Amino acid sequence: MALKDDVLNIANKARKASFEMANLSSLVKNNALEAMAAGLEANAESLKKENAKDLARAKEKRLTDAMINRLTLSDKVINSMATGLREVAALPDPVGTVSEIIVRPNGLRVGRMSIPLGVIGIIYESRPNVTADAAGLCLKSGNAVVLRGGSESIDSNRAIAKVLAEACSASAVPEDAIQVITTTEREAVLEMLKLEEQIDIIIPRGGEGLIRFVVENSKIPVIKHYKGVCHVYVDSDADMDKAVNIAYNAKVQRPGVCNSMETLLVHAGIAETFLPLIAERYAEAGVEMRVCDATRAILPDARLATDDDYAEEFLDLIIAIKVVDNMDGAKAHIERFGSLHTESIVTENYTNAELFIRQINSSSVMVNASTRFADGFEYGLGAEIGISTTKLHAYGPMGLNELTTRKFVVYGDGQIRE
Amino acid sequence: MALKDDVLNIANKARKASFEMANLSSLVKNNALEAMAAGLEANAESLKKENAKDLARAKEKRLTDAMINRLTLSDKVINSMATGLREVAALPDPVGTVSEIIVRPNGLRVGRMSIPLGVIGIIYESRPNVTADAAGLCLKSGNAVVLRGGSESIDSNRAIAKVLAEACSASAVPEDAIQVITTTEREAVLEMLKLEEQIDIIIPRGGEGLIRFVVENSKIPVIKHYKGVCHVYVDSDADMDKAVNIAYNAKVQRPGVCNSMETLLVHAGIAETFLPLIAERYAEAGVEMRVCDATRAILPDARLATDDDYAEEFLDLIIAIKVVDNMDGAKAHIERFGSLHTESIVTENYTNAELFIRQINSSSVMVNASTRFADGFEYGLGAEIGISTTKLHAYGPMGLNELTTRKFVVYGDGQIRE
Repeated sequence: MALKDDVLNIANKARKASFEMANLSSLVKNNALEAMAAGLEANAESLKKENAKDLARAKEKRLTDAMINRLTLSDKVINSMATGLREVAALPDPVGTVSEIIVRPNGLRVGRMSIPLGVIGIIYESRPNVTADAAGLCLKSGNAVVLRGGSESIDSNRAIAKVLAEACSASAVPEDAIQVITTTEREAVLEMLKLEEQIDIIIPRGGEGLIRFVVENSKIPVIKHYKGVCHVYVDSDADMDKAVNIAYNAKVQRPGVCNSMETLLVHAGIAETFLPLIAERYAEAGVEMRVCDATRAILPDARLATDDDYAEEFLDLIIAIKVVDNMDGAKAHIERFGSLHTESIVTENYTNAELFIRQINSSSVMVNASTRFADGFEYGLGAEIGISTTKLHAYGPMGLNELTTRKFVVYGDGQIRE
Repeated sequence: MALKDDVLNIANKARKASFEMANLSSLVKNNALEAMAAGLEANAESLKKENAKDLARAKEKRLTDAMINRLTLSDKVINSMATGLREVAALPDPVGTVSEIIVRPNGLRVGRMSIPLGVIGIIYESRPNVTADAAGLCLKSGNAVVLRGGSESIDSNRAIAKVLAEACSASAVPEDAIQVITTTEREAVLEMLKLEEQIDIIIPRGGEGLIRFVVENSKIPVIKHYKGVCHVYVDSDADMDKAVNIAYNAKVQRPGVCNSMETLLVHAGIAETFLPLIAERYAEAGVEMRVCDATRAILPDARLATDDDYAEEFLDLIIAIKVVDNMDGAKAHIERFGSLHTESIVTENYTNAELFIRQINSSSVMVNASTRFADGFEYGLGAEIGISTTKLHAYGPMGLNELTTRKFVVYGDGQIRE
C-alpha cells in the first residue's frame, strides 16, 4: 500500500509540474540544462561514490563484465552525460512551432501548434547515463518525466536525479519536473504502468524481456521496439564494391546494436560473384555464416541456417544469409522475418531502388547505405529518446519532435457557424 | 469458439489485404471510390429494403424517434454517402508524400514518407452511413478496415458493405479491404479488441458508454474522445457583438454535437454588461441557464449550478455559466472541468489572445470564433474520421493524414558508418 501511494504521489507531482513545463521559455529550459550539466561535473566524485555501491552489489551478484561495464559511472561517462545535456540545450525548442497557417474561405486562420505530450514514463535497464539523457530530452520538449531505472543501478540513478533536481530548483523549472522511482521492488513498475491519468506515454529501453513485460502490463500507451532484425538486400544490379562494403559494415562495425544487419539477402543472379567476396571479408572478421542451400552450393563450408536463424537478432558476429530469386523474394522474406526496424537495398537500378523504398514498410528503408545509419543522430534529429517499430504516433528513431503533439489553433474575427 | 474464429478470420483477411493496399495507386483507389458511390446509388432500393428490417426491429424495441431517425437510410442519406465517397476520391492521396529531404554531412539524403497505418478497426453505433464514410476514408488512405456497427443497424450495414465490397472486387482494390463484422453478439467486439497482431488502431464512434467499453477492453491502441465540454471565455476586452454572437452560436446552432459550448466563462469586469445581453438571446432560444452566485446577482431568475453542471456535456439547450476574476480563473476552470476538446476566447486584447492560444492545451484553441468550427471539414482537412482528445498520434479532428504514419527513407551512394 505504501509503495502504491509512493508511486502515485511521484506521478501526481510530475503531472502537476507538466502543466507549468508546457509554458516555459526555451531560455529557462536551456539554463536548467546547462545547470544540470555543470551539476553533474561538479558532483563527479560523489556520483562515483554512489555508483561504487551499485558496482559492489553487482560484483557480489557476479554480473557479467559487460553488465558491470554498462553500469560503471567513469569520469568519461559523467562528462558525456554533461556534454549530452549541453547538446540538447543547443537544439531548437520543439514546443510552440506552427509550421503553416491556412486561411479558410470564411476567413478563419487555422494552424497546428506543437505542444508537449505531458508526462513521459521511461523504464530502463542498467545504464545509469539514461537518467540524465532522458531527463534532458523530456525537459527540453516541455515534458515532465518519471524515470524508473534498473534495480542494479538504483544508487547511481538516485544520485544523478538528485543533482538534476537541484539544478532545476535553482532555475525556473519546477523541481518536480524530473521524478525518479528509486524503490527496488518490481511492483513499483507495475504500479507505474497503471497510472494512465498521470502518465501519457511509456518508453521502455532495454532488452526484449523488459519491453514485453512493460507492454503486457501497461494501461498506458507504450512506444517501443522489441528487436532489430535488419536486412541488406544485394540486388542483381548492385555495384560490387558498395555491396561488399555495406554488407561488411552493417554486420561488423558494431554487431551488438539494434541497427546492425542480421540477415543478408542476395539476388540469385549475382550470388556466385558476390558471396565469395563477402565471405572472405567476413572470415577475416571472424563472422560466422548460417546460410541457405543455394548459398552452400557456393560456400560449401558454411553452416546451414534454420528458420529460427532468420528470425534471430544475433547482436553478435553471426550472419544469416539467403539467396532469393528476385526483389519479390527479398520482400517476402522481409515481411515474414523482419522486425520493421531497418532494411537496405544495394542496387544501381533506379526502378528497383524506388520500388524497395516504396514497398518495404519498415521504419527505415535505405538505398546503398549501411543499416547502421538508422539512428536519430545520423538522421539529423539531434537526439534520440528511442526507436519505435509500431506505427502509431512515431515510427523509427524518435527525437525531440516525437515527444510533442500538435493542437489546432484557430484565429478568427467573430466567425459563427451558419 | 466459432465466433472467435470468425472474427479472427475477418481480421486476418484485412491484414493480408492491407499489404496490397499500401501500394495501390491513387487512380485505382479513386476508381474504386467512384464505383462504390455508383453502387450505393444503383442499389438504393435494396438498401432501403434491408434497412426496413432494422427499422422494424427498432420499432418493436420502442427505440426513441431520434434513434430511429439516425438509423433510417432515406434516399437523402444514401445520396449523401455516395457524395461523401466522391468527395474523398477528390481529396489528395495522403500516401507516399515526402515533405522534405535533408542532406546529411556524409551525403545521405534523409526524408520521411507517409504510409498507411495498416488495418483500422471502427466500432460505431446506430448510424449506418458510417459504414460507407469510414470505409471510404480508410481505403483512400491505403488502410484495410474492419467495421463493427451497432446491432440495431446490422442488416443495413451488411447490405452497404456488400455493395462496397462488390465495387472493390470490380476494381483493382483487394476485395478483402473492407471487412464487416455482422454478428450481433457483443462478444464479437471483445474478440476484435484482442487482435493486436491484426489490427493497428481502433477508432470508436458513439456515446461515452461505448467508448469507455472499448477503452477498457482493448489491447489495441484506441483513438477517441469521451465527450466535448467546450468553453467560451468572454474576456474583459471582448467586443460585445462578437461575444454575444459567438456565445449564442456556440450553444444554440446545433446543441447536440460535441463541439457545441457547454460552459460560458465571463470576466467579472464585463459580466454586468454582457450577461443581460446574452441572457436575452438565450431566453428567445429557450436555453436554460445554470449559473454561479456572481451570475445570479446579475440574472436573479437563473438556477444555481452545481459542480456536476460544470462537468456535464449537456448536448441540449442548457448552458452552465460562471463569472471568473481573470484569465487565470478561466484557465483554472478549464483545466479542472474541460475535456481537452475545444475552447475559445473572445477578446480584442492581443496579449490575452496569444496567452490563451499558448497556455490552453485543448485539442482546439480559438480566438473570436465559435467552438462549432472544431471539425475536420471546417479546418480544411477535407474529411473527418473522428476527433481525438488524447495527445498520442493525433490530437483534435482527424482527416486522411491522421490515418497514416511516416517511415524514414534514406538515399545513399555507398555510405558506411565509420
